[in-house]
Amino acid sequence: MDRRPIGIFDSGIGGLTVLHEVGQLLPNERLVYLGDTARVPYGTKSPETVTRYSIENTRFLMSKDVKAVVVACNTASAASVDALRAEFDVPVLGVIEAGVEEALSRSVEWRIGVIGTQATVLSGKYESLLRAKGAAEVVSAACPLFVPLAEEGWTDNKVAEEVARIYLQPFLGGAVDTLILGCTHYPLLQGVIGKVCGPEVRLVNSAHAIAVKLRDQLQSGRIENNTGPGDREYFFTDSAERAGAVGSRFLGENLDNRIQLVDLTPFESGKP
Amino acid sequence: MDRRPIGIFDSGIGGLTVLHEVGQLLPNERLVYLGDTARVPYGTKSPETVTRYSIENTRFLMSKDVKAVVVACNTASAASVDALRAEFDVPVLGVIEAGVEEALSRSVEWRIGVIGTQATVLSGKYESLLRAKGAAEVVSAACPLFVPLAEEGWTDNKVAEEVARIYLQPFLGGAVDTLILGCTHYPLLQGVIGKVCGPEVRLVNSAHAIAVKLRDQLQSGRIENNTGPGDREYFFTDSAERAGAVGSRFLGENLDNRIQLVDLTPFESGKP
Repeated sequence: MDRRPIGIFDSGIGGLTVLHEVGQLLPNERLVYLGDTARVPYGTKSPETVTRYSIENTRFLMSKDVKAVVVACNTASAASVDALRAEFDVPVLGVIEAGVEEALSRSVEWRIGVIGTQATVLSGKYESLLRAKGAAEVVSAACPLFVPLAEEGWTDNKVAEEVARIYLQPFLGGAVDTLILGCTHYPLLQGVIGKVCGPEVRLVNSAHAIAVKLRDQLQSGRIENNTGPGDREYFFTDSAERAGAVGSRFLGENLDNRIQLVDLTPFESGKP
Repeated sequence: MDRRPIGIFDSGIGGLTVLHEVGQLLPNERLVYLGDTARVPYGTKSPETVTRYSIENTRFLMSKDVKAVVVACNTASAASVDALRAEFDVPVLGVIEAGVEEALSRSVEWRIGVIGTQATVLSGKYESLLRAKGAAEVVSAACPLFVPLAEEGWTDNKVAEEVARIYLQPFLGGAVDTLILGCTHYPLLQGVIGKVCGPEVRLVNSAHAIAVKLRDQLQSGRIENNTGPGDREYFFTDSAERAGAVGSRFLGENLDNRIQLVDLTPFESGKP
């Protein structure tokens, strides 16, 4: 029994889809969310920069005395999970490992597709992990326009469908039987992605997978919190107003007056 | 006669369209470009954060002994030009003023449209400047998907045209006679924007306008450099590889081996 909160960070707002799933599965746990909106997006930045940001984000969460850290951002998971595990002594969970495990458990023929940001795909992390665990075939593609489409709220119009048709071409015609939505924003486009891919392709939302994995890890480490209800804190590094508007849409509840602005300067590298 | 270089900064790669125009018009001037790719995009960030970044960027350019600073980024021009003029003692030129002046000189009925990022449009800077200078009608709209479309290279496909048709609706049917492309990326979409708007709407590319203004200012201050050829330096704060690939497309020449990575930490606020 451990009343310390769970820390969740993302490059921005998208990780709220992960917070939502964790909250559903572990309603008694206290959750601290950090969205690094001042430095979003991570997807176009180098792995070194993303790792530096991830370390700073985790230092902030550690200052809130968290008992576990969930890396909700796919780009940060690809670049930084190993570095975080080396530097911090709490469990660190990444969305990529969780998504890979769920994809393999649901796929029949182990022919798996992955879509994500350019950085996630270029990192090759999904692909190498899937192959190491025995996947027969891995097909991946970057879908850079999906994030701005989701944030614009254009999730089921003609543009979204046309963009999905272009990006998802490599996954059609039986090329894969399972597709990992390798970016926290993509579940918002699940409808149009499913429409283009058809029912023969299973879609894996790794937000749910990481929530299950987190529950298992808390239980096996005997650090779960069974006396709720868990409170929540939402921190963003910039533009609380925009985070409130877009975040409320992502989370399905109004965040407007519950967001705190945080300056990460004290947690920057080279500082204690 | 002043051999010091001209500094040009942008939040990322788009400002290379400004550097290109300046180089065409002032081929003898030495140019130092800074693209803040580690912190791009500015368009989703608060004016305070954008101003802090702009000051840091300008400090870096001043360390290169520049004789003038061109703020190529529309978001930074909207948020920060006044702060930069207060803090630095070289001429500071912003794309917004240049674009407004050119639009008014070319418009017949002074009914002007403006498209840009959400931050540029929300700042109201174009609108207030246009009205202060006597515009009869100002219509503005944010086009968040234009930047990722330009960077993806989707500048003349079905998606680009459909997106343009949605965003440009407010400017059609005689609503304006002139449209300012209020974001450095938008000139790459000029073809599809012109197709949707039709020949009755003049398109203003402020990159050219600011180059003309810069030339006039150098001449009136007698600080021009007439003995070329001007050399160029390209600095980016992150991901030199991506900057090279996209930047080469923007500039129409290969940048790959000419890009230098720079760390702005020494120029951050609170530091000398």
